[in-house]
Amino acid sequence: MYKLIKVDGGVCTAEGFYADGISAGLKPNNVKDMAFVYSDTLCETATAFTTNKMTAAPIRHFKAKGEFQTNFVLINAKNANAMTGKAGIEDIEEILATLPEEVHNPVMSSTGVIGVRLPKEKIIAGARLFDLKKRDANAAAAAIMTTDTFSKQIAYRVELEDGSCFHIGAMAKGAGMINPAMATMLCFITTDAKVDKDEMQNILNDNVKRTFNAASVDGDTSTNDTVMLLSNAKSKVYHKEAFTEALYKIMRFLAREMVRDGEGATKLVTYEVSGAKDDEEAEIVAKALTNSLLVKTALYGEDPNWGRIASTVGASGVEAYEESLKISFEDVCVYDRGELYFDAVMEQKAGEVMKRDSFTIYCDLGIGDGKFTAFGCDLGYEYVKINADYRT
Amino acid sequence: MYKLIKVDGGVCTAEGFYADGISAGLKPNNVKDMAFVYSDTLCETATAFTTNKMTAAPIRHFKAKGEFQTNFVLINAKNANAMTGKAGIEDIEEILATLPEEVHNPVMSSTGVIGVRLPKEKIIAGARLFDLKKRDANAAAAAIMTTDTFSKQIAYRVELEDGSCFHIGAMAKGAGMINPAMATMLCFITTDAKVDKDEMQNILNDNVKRTFNAASVDGDTSTNDTVMLLSNAKSKVYHKEAFTEALYKIMRFLAREMVRDGEGATKLVTYEVSGAKDDEEAEIVAKALTNSLLVKTALYGEDPNWGRIASTVGASGVEAYEESLKISFEDVCVYDRGELYFDAVMEQKAGEVMKRDSFTIYCDLGIGDGKFTAFGCDLGYEYVKINADYRT
Repeated sequence: MYKLIKVDGGVCTAEGFYADGISAGLKPNNVKDMAFVYSDTLCETATAFTTNKMTAAPIRHFKAKGEFQTNFVLINAKNANAMTGKAGIEDIEEILATLPEEVHNPVMSSTGVIGVRLPKEKIIAGARLFDLKKRDANAAAAAIMTTDTFSKQIAYRVELEDGSCFHIGAMAKGAGMINPAMATMLCFITTDAKVDKDEMQNILNDNVKRTFNAASVDGDTSTNDTVMLLSNAKSKVYHKEAFTEALYKIMRFLAREMVRDGEGATKLVTYEVSGAKDDEEAEIVAKALTNSLLVKTALYGEDPNWGRIASTVGASGVEAYEESLKISFEDVCVYDRGELYFDAVMEQKAGEVMKRDSFTIYCDLGIGDGKFTAFGCDLGYEYVKINADYRT
Repeated sequence: MYKLIKVDGGVCTAEGFYADGISAGLKPNNVKDMAFVYSDTLCETATAFTTNKMTAAPIRHFKAKGEFQTNFVLINAKNANAMTGKAGIEDIEEILATLPEEVHNPVMSSTGVIGVRLPKEKIIAGARLFDLKKRDANAAAAAIMTTDTFSKQIAYRVELEDGSCFHIGAMAKGAGMINPAMATMLCFITTDAKVDKDEMQNILNDNVKRTFNAASVDGDTSTNDTVMLLSNAKSKVYHKEAFTEALYKIMRFLAREMVRDGEGATKLVTYEVSGAKDDEEAEIVAKALTNSLLVKTALYGEDPNWGRIASTVGASGVEAYEESLKISFEDVCVYDRGELYFDAVMEQKAGEVMKRDSFTIYCDLGIGDGKFTAFGCDLGYEYVKINADYRT
């Protein structure tokens, strides 16, 4: 047996990890825009990167290094260093070469506008402000935000039966370009668990599919998505089941927080799809629901227009039948295999559910055992406002 | 040689065709909401229907009839007769049974809200108002509108070298749920050309792919999409090349008009994708661009944020490289294989292009010969407004 205890401290919770955020003048008004995560000993890494073919320079830089251990990640907001070709890689190398000697094999992670060279001098000057002995997880989490309206952190102390323990902490940013298959989301996770590198990568992959890749704000997949897990093994403790559960909870929490804070979003909606031919088809349906503009605007309007849900299921390409489909808003069934007609009472009840900040829509295809859960949000005027002039 | 001459008259242009629109009280304030298309002799039909698995009752009714000739189509707005099960089919049969004796094998087509039974009595009473000798194509085109802001019609007289001629006319409605693979779009085309049924179906299929299925407003595919071509052969004239060209022009015009009138749209954007590995990959990219929320909101904001275009290309899953990609807004190249950096002058020029009501974005992947052209629009506040409370 083991216990997961939620604690404060974010990415600085695990032993030997340090982090801070500073202002390098990338964002206006001295808002924090650069962060670091540092470990005083070398770390193994597990990563999940964007599937976008126009992979940003920091990710290409990371991948080109092959097998390596690191103890430092430099993160900047406001500029994605994407579509910048070889120059983008050279900029990273030049910046990282200026870091202090405690830093080994440093890597970089960026988010922001695409197609503009990094403001190298500002970043180099900013990095000189870093104090590697600072443990300000809040400042780091704030510095990596772009259109996020709140910072996202979580950490657990994992206590085993024999009294030993290890820690996992994380921070993330999300908000826009969030879509199944990764998005402009960055997530940094630190742990002092003594976990094997390959096992850590496998557990991460498995969790990404059910958490970040099951979350969508707008159906666009960014050039910069990164989930990076750093482990320095300092606790000398490990327990696979506990580690797996804690990591899943952390990633699920952050994925849901990202959607909740989706650009212009006012509601976090969980889509539980069941009864599909198989899990793959359930996943297709769940993700189609998170991305349908007509479903998203109906959510925003708090209109229990279940016909749009049925239509989206039908349009998703999977096996589905009007005669076996069942749709519920929480415990209010609005369509039951054609045997129930939507009346004013049901509409009122379903409308009540939709007024909540967060609720679940159940969609049973009535065919097989396939199931998948995805996280989506509504789309309102604010989304348009934010994205019609994000650059300016 | 032959000449295509644009003429007025819409679906009533071809010999022997009649149409009208009336108010049956489905829409408020006596707005026209029901239309018919009638031919005084039987017609062969060619059709393209939605790929949505939750196929609406009128389409299931049509398909169940097998091989048949008809001379009458009844169209209603405001109620889609979708997700209505067997009762939906029975409602259609009951309604069609009340039509006058001149009508043979009538069919129905519906658009509007999903999941509500047809207001049968109102529709039957409305159909009694039909005068089969009326030729008011304008009234018919207006009656089938839902969130459309203008009606959509076009017709050609096709003159052959020997002085003989035939006609093709059409009307359509679009606006929302418009997506590649058909959408809540209805399109009715009438012709007196003496065209073979199978050939007419083949030509229609070929054109649907390059016109309606290349057009997207919101990425949602409806339960009711229908393109129906009726031919009564009255002109006794046919010319394959001329017929094909006229039909293509008609369908392309209506597809573009639908996008131009997309819910909340202020701009019609043509995406010409070239240099893809093959035509299929070009089509994937072109359609991804029409459906990207970040691209659509950048269009609305008149922001030449070409990074979002590059990112969408990269996320679409096709073979693509930062080093071979080229993006232009009309004749303003904004990204050229990484060899050109976007400066204030280019931004200003590209911004000028984006101020137009209609323009073309060229995207050359620089890999092969694959190409495809798709039609999309921007997404602004009005889209949200229209869809957040469409039902009320």
